[in-house]
Amino acid sequence: MTANLVLLRHGESDWNRKNLFTGWVDVDLTETGEAEGKRGGELLREHGLLPEVVHTSLLRRAIRTAQLSLDAADRHWIPVKRSWRLNERHYGALQGKDKAAVRAEFGDGQFMLWRRSYDIPPPPLADDDEFSQARDVRYANLLTSVPRTECLADVVARLLPYFYDSIVPDLRNGTVLIAAHGNSLRALIKYLDGLSDAAVVSLNVPTGIPLRYELDETTLLPVKAAEYLDPDAAEAAIHAVANQGK
Amino acid sequence: MTANLVLLRHGESDWNRKNLFTGWVDVDLTETGEAEGKRGGELLREHGLLPEVVHTSLLRRAIRTAQLSLDAADRHWIPVKRSWRLNERHYGALQGKDKAAVRAEFGDGQFMLWRRSYDIPPPPLADDDEFSQARDVRYANLLTSVPRTECLADVVARLLPYFYDSIVPDLRNGTVLIAAHGNSLRALIKYLDGLSDAAVVSLNVPTGIPLRYELDETTLLPVKAAEYLDPDAAEAAIHAVANQGK
Repeated sequence: MTANLVLLRHGESDWNRKNLFTGWVDVDLTETGEAEGKRGGELLREHGLLPEVVHTSLLRRAIRTAQLSLDAADRHWIPVKRSWRLNERHYGALQGKDKAAVRAEFGDGQFMLWRRSYDIPPPPLADDDEFSQARDVRYANLLTSVPRTECLADVVARLLPYFYDSIVPDLRNGTVLIAAHGNSLRALIKYLDGLSDAAVVSLNVPTGIPLRYELDETTLLPVKAAEYLDPDAAEAAIHAVANQGK
Repeated sequence: MTANLVLLRHGESDWNRKNLFTGWVDVDLTETGEAEGKRGGELLREHGLLPEVVHTSLLRRAIRTAQLSLDAADRHWIPVKRSWRLNERHYGALQGKDKAAVRAEFGDGQFMLWRRSYDIPPPPLADDDEFSQARDVRYANLLTSVPRTECLADVVARLLPYFYDSIVPDLRNGTVLIAAHGNSLRALIKYLDGLSDAAVVSLNVPTGIPLRYELDETTLLPVKAAEYLDPDAAEAAIHAVANQGK
């Protein structure tokens, strides 16, 4: 017996299209992103990979991707759980800034450090910034610990408690879908695949293509390499992600 | 202190428009129904009535109405709970049948008995009928007790355990939204307003207009009459519901 875990990165958002750093800013999907969500659900259905429960972040682009894909898979009726711990990495003072402009202003080296280094966060976002979440009601229970910036190591640290406490029990009851973000999924994949801090730097997750993990029923670690349900599209998309900001 | 409960009947569905008995058949919203869902969410936002949690049936028209309204109210990120106990009344052998044709075939008296009597269910739906839910995977945990038909008294009996066990605890933590159906909401209103079996017969619930209950914090019974957030639209819509099948 194995357990099935399916990871789904949200489809294209308004700010993906505009090439802006997004982080915790709650932007919506574009029409392309909506179509990606539906296509993700069709892939689930075609592969007979039918989630018993879905976990999402608190951000609209992941929530709507989950809704669109589950509707297309005829699994709209399954229970839904949400947590800020599945949110995208908080991009600090870069939130709302143009990626190419940041790259031009600070140079390739600093740009890549902020974007891809494991443990170097961007400068913190000021609480009075228009893109701050310090007073967003949905994070009120975090009290004073709402992030002002995060590196990927921070995401790993805040995501894993949710994986252990909330997702693992569900994995024992059937297929689980996680609809989340590039960096929260990279953090989870780092754990599942046992990637080093250095190896995760070059990992990219394409949007809208379900990634299936078959997990050992006892350890809930992968019994083999994870598989994208549309491998050709995944490979093409991974190259596109790697070229963002150029 | 009082607790807020908001009831929302799903927007127009394909089969509302076609004037067919729907029950547990999982039809989608029309574009008009989608607009009703969004408008319901705008009303919530305008009235500052912001749910902390939403409960839905397992049927797409209520699920999508909840999604559209919460997105419009900027509350897309709240937890979602679902239960078959909030489903529409199972319409038995009438599911998929034209309301006007049934009225013509069986006469006004029998039509109104099936449609509105408290304790007379339509004939049961055969398990091999194309509109049966006897083998629908989402009801697999009901084992052999998946309904084949229901009267409103049956709906009251299966809905109230969910109200007591799952909704009441949430009411103690903030505003609760229930996105459901004409007859499951009638069953709940019968309980909340203490309506007699006879009085509930003439109760109609309009689609897409949030109905706010202010409940005593101890008894969780209404401290005053419930209010539609758009009273004029509600009154007009109630008349339209009453005329279905004519």
